[in-house]
Amino acid sequence: MAQSIRGGIDLGGTKIQTVIVDESQKVLGSARAATPTGGGPADVAAAMAGALREATKAAGLKDTAALAGIGVGSPGAVDEKAGTVSGAGNLPDWAGTFPLGPTLSKDLGVPVAIGNDVQVATDAELLLGAGREVSSLIGVFWGTGVGSGIMLDRRPWLGRGAAGELGHTVIKLGGARCPCGRRGCVEAYAGRGALEARARKRDSEGKATDLFKLMEKHDRTRLTSSIWARALDQKDGLARELIDDAIEALGAGIASAINLLDLEMVVIGGGLGVRLGQPYVERIELAMRPHLFVDDRPPDVRLAELGDLGGAIGAALLVDKTLH
Amino acid sequence: MAQSIRGGIDLGGTKIQTVIVDESQKVLGSARAATPTGGGPADVAAAMAGALREATKAAGLKDTAALAGIGVGSPGAVDEKAGTVSGAGNLPDWAGTFPLGPTLSKDLGVPVAIGNDVQVATDAELLLGAGREVSSLIGVFWGTGVGSGIMLDRRPWLGRGAAGELGHTVIKLGGARCPCGRRGCVEAYAGRGALEARARKRDSEGKATDLFKLMEKHDRTRLTSSIWARALDQKDGLARELIDDAIEALGAGIASAINLLDLEMVVIGGGLGVRLGQPYVERIELAMRPHLFVDDRPPDVRLAELGDLGGAIGAALLVDKTLH
Repeated sequence: MAQSIRGGIDLGGTKIQTVIVDESQKVLGSARAATPTGGGPADVAAAMAGALREATKAAGLKDTAALAGIGVGSPGAVDEKAGTVSGAGNLPDWAGTFPLGPTLSKDLGVPVAIGNDVQVATDAELLLGAGREVSSLIGVFWGTGVGSGIMLDRRPWLGRGAAGELGHTVIKLGGARCPCGRRGCVEAYAGRGALEARARKRDSEGKATDLFKLMEKHDRTRLTSSIWARALDQKDGLARELIDDAIEALGAGIASAINLLDLEMVVIGGGLGVRLGQPYVERIELAMRPHLFVDDRPPDVRLAELGDLGGAIGAALLVDKTLH
Repeated sequence: MAQSIRGGIDLGGTKIQTVIVDESQKVLGSARAATPTGGGPADVAAAMAGALREATKAAGLKDTAALAGIGVGSPGAVDEKAGTVSGAGNLPDWAGTFPLGPTLSKDLGVPVAIGNDVQVATDAELLLGAGREVSSLIGVFWGTGVGSGIMLDRRPWLGRGAAGELGHTVIKLGGARCPCGRRGCVEAYAGRGALEARARKRDSEGKATDLFKLMEKHDRTRLTSSIWARALDQKDGLARELIDDAIEALGAGIASAINLLDLEMVVIGGGLGVRLGQPYVERIELAMRPHLFVDDRPPDVRLAELGDLGGAIGAALLVDKTLH
């Protein structure tokens, strides 16, 4: 059973990514859905189940009963035993606790294991991706928010359960308001949620930008990673300015983490990180440099090798770890 | 041999603290000397040997031959095997590599083990001090600089050898110049070296302060921790303003470390930390609060229990670990 076909679901603030993988973690099929922006946890769970069924079909399987289990990487506070998720602030009406595991398991008819979204994506990069040959790394997931997973001696460091909040490193005392309510966090400058809020404010103040025209043209309701990438490609002034600030904030925050932990590698993933890709990973690396205390042997800074699918593949790894 | 009388030396940027401890780490004698501000590493080593001899006498021992060994906690990059120290920037003319262990061993006639000053002080707090009952903590040493030692699952986390540079967490992008040459680090606001430079600048610009009068009155050439404490006691405006900034910087930097690592405890030590004591530990705790991402279960924040002697006691612990 530990070597069978499994499903993985990466639940993000913007999209739901699903995969079906075989015993060697090869992706047999995948599907993606937009994360519902309204409704509540039950609607999100229904969208997740729908996307997983699509991936099952794409993998050439008859139905989800063919799966040994499904793993889910979720934001918020995850109770792995109970299968519940609490306080997932970037998801609609999800301040309380919702039994995501039991709900999906009932819907899809197979066992479901839940873990932290960022940690499962970091696990996947360490086991199968950019971090295969190092013993310590931080995975930085630059998306709707900025999360991180820390691996020390090839094991996750979770602290009292909530480690990895690199996005809430203070890089500017008294600085910009963060979606978390505090001031001057990395995420206040770099999270896609905060970036969109800043762009909307500047746009409403009359700053010229094509960001929102591009959004409408491509039939989106949010500034997705693709919209940012397109705006940067066409040298949109506001997009460049805000992404410059984001990179500066990420560079300072990641360098501070390296000064504290002296890790071998930084892996950059997440929706924005993966979409903007290698040139922006190099810009983050350059932005770290001025702040590194030991500056003659900087850590290796790499793009997440598993790309967009890393979170879902990492989630699928939970099946063997947790359910068997 | 592992249960015998040992010496410990804590080499700081301002003072050299020595102790003689028995098998249960009880302090039998201690002595302190000012760290030479001129000369070079050989002069510092001679001052260390002199202070250790004094402590030996204070312990009622005939001479250092009665010791099983001596441990040294040193700033800079320590090569434990070779007994060398390199790049100790806060010590006079110590940019290169000096064989501190062999030099002291030859002078004092007993084996000498060398470790990182901050790490040995953190070890001592975990084993014998405030951290006896927790499994993870960060020891923050607020003195000439701001250093830290990290204990995870009751073991030191050293990274690639240089972990613990909490003092170089960036808390204000583009902020004050740090003694390390970078900008906006915690130490740029909180280190005693930086505090003195800021005070001198403000004094030369005509800002009213008694800091330098107190320094002369007490026959010092630097703004020592005691001078800062006296100035604060008499409500000196500049001293209060600069220490307020220092506490704000420490609060943001420590909170960022907690957001990243979710540790159980913060132990505040170091020359300034110990001299200013519990009321200032409480102020640091309050300054952390607004930045803690998980704010309903903050870490325990404690004053170093071993006080001024923690570094030297921790250094003495090296003898059993390293030499036997």
